[in-house]
Amino acid sequence: MRLHRLIRILYPPRSISFCSSSSPPAGKEVKGSTRLLEIGDVLRECRRFSASDVASYSEVTGDRNPVHLDADFSRRVAGFEGGRIVHGMLVASLFPSLIASHFPGAIYVAQNLKFKLPVYVGEEVVAEVKAIYTKGIKNRFIAKFTTKCFTNQDCLVIDGEATTILPTLVLNK
Amino acid sequence: MRLHRLIRILYPPRSISFCSSSSPPAGKEVKGSTRLLEIGDVLRECRRFSASDVASYSEVTGDRNPVHLDADFSRRVAGFEGGRIVHGMLVASLFPSLIASHFPGAIYVAQNLKFKLPVYVGEEVVAEVKAIYTKGIKNRFIAKFTTKCFTNQDCLVIDGEATTILPTLVLNK
Repeated sequence: MRLHRLIRILYPPRSISFCSSSSPPAGKEVKGSTRLLEIGDVLRECRRFSASDVASYSEVTGDRNPVHLDADFSRRVAGFEGGRIVHGMLVASLFPSLIASHFPGAIYVAQNLKFKLPVYVGEEVVAEVKAIYTKGIKNRFIAKFTTKCFTNQDCLVIDGEATTILPTLVLNK
Repeated sequence: MRLHRLIRILYPPRSISFCSSSSPPAGKEVKGSTRLLEIGDVLRECRRFSASDVASYSEVTGDRNPVHLDADFSRRVAGFEGGRIVHGMLVASLFPSLIASHFPGAIYVAQNLKFKLPVYVGEEVVAEVKAIYTKGIKNRFIAKFTTKCFTNQDCLVIDGEATTILPTLVLNK
């Protein structure tokens, strides 16, 4: 059985919408250009992981799975026709990176991830983080986000949810 | 409210057992020294992430959250008294790394993570992956693992579960 068919059994495909806009999130505006995160706000980042990125990540994490480093192995053993794939956890690192870039000092409390399709080395991927819950507790905020990555505009490759503790709801950029 | 107290509210502590043995997993032995993964088998890896590791990871992922790079910020804003903390997703990268080192060609399908306590730069962390489910589907295997990280032998810092597709149940080492 081909690997993508096996993954499809685990995660049946469903219709999704995709917005390619890179406009700033629509958080509530306060004090001139300052914005507060609101439910429904979406943060996005586009990234293309190079062979050099994958090699660096392999080096620092110690994850030298040949599906990431050996195109022939990746095709032959794992059935990934496009060759070398990016470590799923490297692609997923876009989520905390994206959140922390808007909320420096953000702390990750939980992250659920479903790796639905491979991301190939050099392929463009868009990470999308959407606020679904916020609650203030004294001087901090618990915030939950859906966390998705897409390739080819509408192809959902990673799906999940993150729970964070933010020092503020004011967006940093 | 101190951050660790907030995290404790989200994840109340519970009693856990810890085994510091680094003996090979007790998988079924076949053909001399070849072993097959069995339910209950535990794989472990010990690691200490240096400041250089954290800098390299920040570089490749783009995650420059100051809690990882600025000890004073980490203490003052996030309340992490030990200073700089390791990216949670970098610590969690030990799980796929550990699985792939025993099963080259392993594919990650899902990973749930709860970040219960910080891991400080330079602190020793033990990643522990325990097989809880395996099922053969034609020429591949779905395998589920509990995924935990500990510091100070019995302090659970990351808890979760991973689902993988393995090309074989034969342990590589």
